[in-house]
Amino acid sequence: MKFNVCVAGATGNVGRTMIKILEERKFPVDRIRLLASSRSLGKKLVFRGAEIEVEELTLDSFEKNELILSSPGGSVSKWYIPSAVKAGALVIDNTSAFRMNSGVPLVVPEVNPHAAFKHKGIIANPNCSTIQMVVVLKPIHDFAKIRRIVVSTYQAVSGAGIAAIDELKKQSKALLEGSQYEPSVFPHQIAFNCIPQIPQKKAFSDNFYSEEEMKMVNETKKIMEDPTIAVTATTVRVPVVTGHSESVNIETERKLTRTKTIAILKEAPGVTVMDDPENQVYPLASFAEGKNSTYVGRIREDISHKSALDMWIVSDNLRKGAALNAVQIAELFL
Amino acid sequence: MKFNVCVAGATGNVGRTMIKILEERKFPVDRIRLLASSRSLGKKLVFRGAEIEVEELTLDSFEKNELILSSPGGSVSKWYIPSAVKAGALVIDNTSAFRMNSGVPLVVPEVNPHAAFKHKGIIANPNCSTIQMVVVLKPIHDFAKIRRIVVSTYQAVSGAGIAAIDELKKQSKALLEGSQYEPSVFPHQIAFNCIPQIPQKKAFSDNFYSEEEMKMVNETKKIMEDPTIAVTATTVRVPVVTGHSESVNIETERKLTRTKTIAILKEAPGVTVMDDPENQVYPLASFAEGKNSTYVGRIREDISHKSALDMWIVSDNLRKGAALNAVQIAELFL
Repeated sequence: MKFNVCVAGATGNVGRTMIKILEERKFPVDRIRLLASSRSLGKKLVFRGAEIEVEELTLDSFEKNELILSSPGGSVSKWYIPSAVKAGALVIDNTSAFRMNSGVPLVVPEVNPHAAFKHKGIIANPNCSTIQMVVVLKPIHDFAKIRRIVVSTYQAVSGAGIAAIDELKKQSKALLEGSQYEPSVFPHQIAFNCIPQIPQKKAFSDNFYSEEEMKMVNETKKIMEDPTIAVTATTVRVPVVTGHSESVNIETERKLTRTKTIAILKEAPGVTVMDDPENQVYPLASFAEGKNSTYVGRIREDISHKSALDMWIVSDNLRKGAALNAVQIAELFL
Repeated sequence: MKFNVCVAGATGNVGRTMIKILEERKFPVDRIRLLASSRSLGKKLVFRGAEIEVEELTLDSFEKNELILSSPGGSVSKWYIPSAVKAGALVIDNTSAFRMNSGVPLVVPEVNPHAAFKHKGIIANPNCSTIQMVVVLKPIHDFAKIRRIVVSTYQAVSGAGIAAIDELKKQSKALLEGSQYEPSVFPHQIAFNCIPQIPQKKAFSDNFYSEEEMKMVNETKKIMEDPTIAVTATTVRVPVVTGHSESVNIETERKLTRTKTIAILKEAPGVTVMDDPENQVYPLASFAEGKNSTYVGRIREDISHKSALDMWIVSDNLRKGAALNAVQIAELFL
């Protein structure tokens, strides 16, 4: 069984990582096509040693039974995916365009793989910061029922695109040399600074939550298939290239000790416990970058509550937070 | 009324900022002496246009009625302060050496100024991340009674000393150039990374909280003079030079709206509300650096709880978090 695969948005940070991961995981690709906007026409990317030219993504780009790994802008997804579905393709879409549609499964393979099989042509890949959190929290929820989550994020710039990485690097260099570098991707200086607004330049909800914060709230409930889990989030961009970190506080119905939590997480698929603070062992973005696991550490019983835990969760936002999770969804159909 | 002032630990980040702030605020200094370890002997620092030579801090450095602004290492404070008190000096100490001693007031002038007058020769200046949080939370507590605080910090490296700033800058430069720079101040790479351990290289408590986290827990209760406030903290070093940011969730007995909270904070001493997210106005470390106020924004009613708020608090950790607060304590005695 082999697939004809399209990567839509192939030249972005996530698209490039999708190509790498298809190769790394020996995904059974029969033919691969790389699609992007007309700006990227003629660019070449390498898959399994062969140079492949980027084609333009159009409304008649797709055919029956093609597997589309999709990560263009959200507005591009909204525009082209209905045509792709009509052509009979299966789209695994990394944008937020269809995530909260009731007919569209939102899937993290370690958490709700069964949902993927109810698709009607589209499976949504969740938000990066949500994926790494639910991979860790699902086994805890199954054992102890999570009532409330308070999460603060430390998010890398690569989630905001190649231009965002460029801005962080050039601005850092300028500031180190005592000169200036005006922001254009981010609304403020990102080098040596923390910006509590994700995505940059997007409107806030009526409740004053940012779009990213509401994604964490809503997507967590949908993926965990439990609308009773209360979630609040503060999402923050930090001057890190790749690797999202999260400070997560959870209140549980059943009281969990640190020891029991670690035992549960050591058995959890896709999760690696790194928790030996005395020896300075805890998850770090610099360590998680380029790796496929989600790392958890600094696990503590919360001294402010009778039944709560604090923990620190880190993963590569381009891999488990995006491209890897999309390829893992595809692997469910092998 | 004029004071003979000593700055102990004058050559460090906080000591230098103390000298600057004494000058900026026209503190009535009769004579000033700058003390440090023998390593700094012969160094000269400028106060009101005059070069002043650094003297060695010894056990007989002090005299009656001298005002000592103290920010050497915690072990140095423990060693010399009893002698200074015996000599009849008043010590405002920025280290953690005496903060939790029952006979030592722990003071934030906007929060508990009355406590300062109960001193027996030592007044402790609180931890940087605690000061900026309680300045904002005290007026909320007075109105609505805070039951629980869940805080995650984004702390600048300047709190870890001059060598820490140097390490962040040199390591950032090296990584941007594709080379390496081995950490020596921090336990891991701090450039383009987040480290969930403060202070670096210090042991954790038996409950797996770091020393900084337990400072936030214990000092908050002492300064707010309410041991019933439950606090949990996750303290994280981020690649920022100066300016601590904090994501703070508070549960209150009395339900507060966003509007009411903003109204309370607009009246709060030492606090500036920056909260117009739609126009990308919220506190930033890059803006707070060099300023004396504590900035608060991203104020929201927490959708996960019937009576809770989320907010984002930023201040200059060397100023309000350390040197400014110490000078403000001294000003209580004018």
